[in-house]
Amino acid sequence: MVPTSVSPPPLRPPQVNMQKYQVALCQLLVSPDKEENLARARARIEAAADAGAMLIVMPEIWSCPYSLETLPSDAEDIDGGASPSISMLSEVAAARKITIVGGSIPEKASGKVFNTCCVIGPDGHILAKHRKLHLFEIDIPGDIKFKESDAFTGGQEPTVVDTDVGRIGIGICHDIRFPELAMLYRSREKYFFPSSAFNMSTGELLWDLMQKSRAVDNQLFVATCSPARDPDAKPQYIIWGHSSLIGPFGEVLAAAGHEETTAIGEIDLSMIQSTRESLPLEMQSRGDLYRLVDVQRQ
Amino acid sequence: MVPTSVSPPPLRPPQVNMQKYQVALCQLLVSPDKEENLARARARIEAAADAGAMLIVMPEIWSCPYSLETLPSDAEDIDGGASPSISMLSEVAAARKITIVGGSIPEKASGKVFNTCCVIGPDGHILAKHRKLHLFEIDIPGDIKFKESDAFTGGQEPTVVDTDVGRIGIGICHDIRFPELAMLYRSREKYFFPSSAFNMSTGELLWDLMQKSRAVDNQLFVATCSPARDPDAKPQYIIWGHSSLIGPFGEVLAAAGHEETTAIGEIDLSMIQSTRESLPLEMQSRGDLYRLVDVQRQ
Repeated sequence: MVPTSVSPPPLRPPQVNMQKYQVALCQLLVSPDKEENLARARARIEAAADAGAMLIVMPEIWSCPYSLETLPSDAEDIDGGASPSISMLSEVAAARKITIVGGSIPEKASGKVFNTCCVIGPDGHILAKHRKLHLFEIDIPGDIKFKESDAFTGGQEPTVVDTDVGRIGIGICHDIRFPELAMLYRSREKYFFPSSAFNMSTGELLWDLMQKSRAVDNQLFVATCSPARDPDAKPQYIIWGHSSLIGPFGEVLAAAGHEETTAIGEIDLSMIQSTRESLPLEMQSRGDLYRLVDVQRQ
Repeated sequence: MVPTSVSPPPLRPPQVNMQKYQVALCQLLVSPDKEENLARARARIEAAADAGAMLIVMPEIWSCPYSLETLPSDAEDIDGGASPSISMLSEVAAARKITIVGGSIPEKASGKVFNTCCVIGPDGHILAKHRKLHLFEIDIPGDIKFKESDAFTGGQEPTVVDTDVGRIGIGICHDIRFPELAMLYRSREKYFFPSSAFNMSTGELLWDLMQKSRAVDNQLFVATCSPARDPDAKPQYIIWGHSSLIGPFGEVLAAAGHEETTAIGEIDLSMIQSTRESLPLEMQSRGDLYRLVDVQRQ
């Protein structure tokens, strides 16, 4: 029912090499010591690959603490090839022939700092780079105050990437709060993979809700990965944890608590098709009343 | 960031006569006897008004059973003034000086049957009539199969109505599954009030999730009302129940179980403003990347 005159050109359908595979969500504890974080991440990714995972999802800001004061000095130059964090991910991906959605690290580029996720293929090359689009800002008097734009600049485009394990849309944390982004990804591809770190104030209320609603509204898989909760962290930004994999009907396919752990779940792409056949939301949608415009594809 | 050239003309701001008031969700048990249903509904509305509720929300299809076979013969001619269900609601609204979101009844008009919600003001007049936009259809092999379009025709327009208790957007059951409708209502007004009857298969998975995600994504109140569960109903469509009132930050302000009951909660309109100040989602939204078009307002 969407008028064809305003529809963007059709995309090439995604190439799917694997219909069913294991996904590992590496819920890492993050310390102030980058070398230690990298070593711990490497060990956890290698163990997940050894256990059979073909896709690894990492947390938001896993190589250094999530502190607005220190993020700029912890930022790495990915385009300049001076990023120890991404180099490590590339090495492990190539060595184990796996795909990694690299959570995020602070990236410095053109005098700015971005909150950036690299997706790395099984040959170790960077397939895509997503810069967090929606910077988090909250001010609840007496509870929490946080303004991410004090450290970061927002990205300029949504990220959809074709990988060995299918077509993936990337989001980082607060990106998941905007239903339009997931809807736009749905119109472009098959999954939606935010890698996130919710805090204690909004985590309990929103974390589970956001993942499930994006999954069931768009009939996609949603995989999220958070750092582990550090009980010694400053109270202003205690991590919620609870990394999880949600199926297209809201099914919880894997879920962590708040400790450091790797949650492993199975993605079976045929579930997308069967969910959409059982509940044909796209067919029932009223393009004569509302329409989401994917601005950059017009 | 939305280009002004495509923005619809601004709406007159809603007139708010009450900032804070009680809402009653009348979760009625529905029998095959229409007279009995009307008497039971009237008694429950009167009791809620006596308890101080200024707004009553009724369930989807409360005057007759929700059976695709009998709905057409139970349908009433609202425009022709031959609707005992709506007449009863009008009488009670006028007698108690309350606003009623009348859930829905089957409506016959121009040879078709619609699933229709009337909103009635404290003078007893019909302020708005919403015909369910998204007809429910599901086919899960071995579990549930249901096709609402066998009995009903879908409506042609979203419904936003100014009442004594504020500006309300109306949805009926499956209308809540489409995030675009709630987003469109958000852009037009203050609340979103679906009156719904989820079944057992999708109720447990989706009911709570849908209400909360529409509320927190749009920072609105969401009030839902379901019939009570009838343990003797045919297994193909057992009602989920669980009528509830959700605040703009996902707060559960009132909630029923599955038995016949009236859940009463408070709406404090200032919560919308304070939630939007704490978490300025609208400001953080990326109109440069996506934009929802309200087709009928273009």
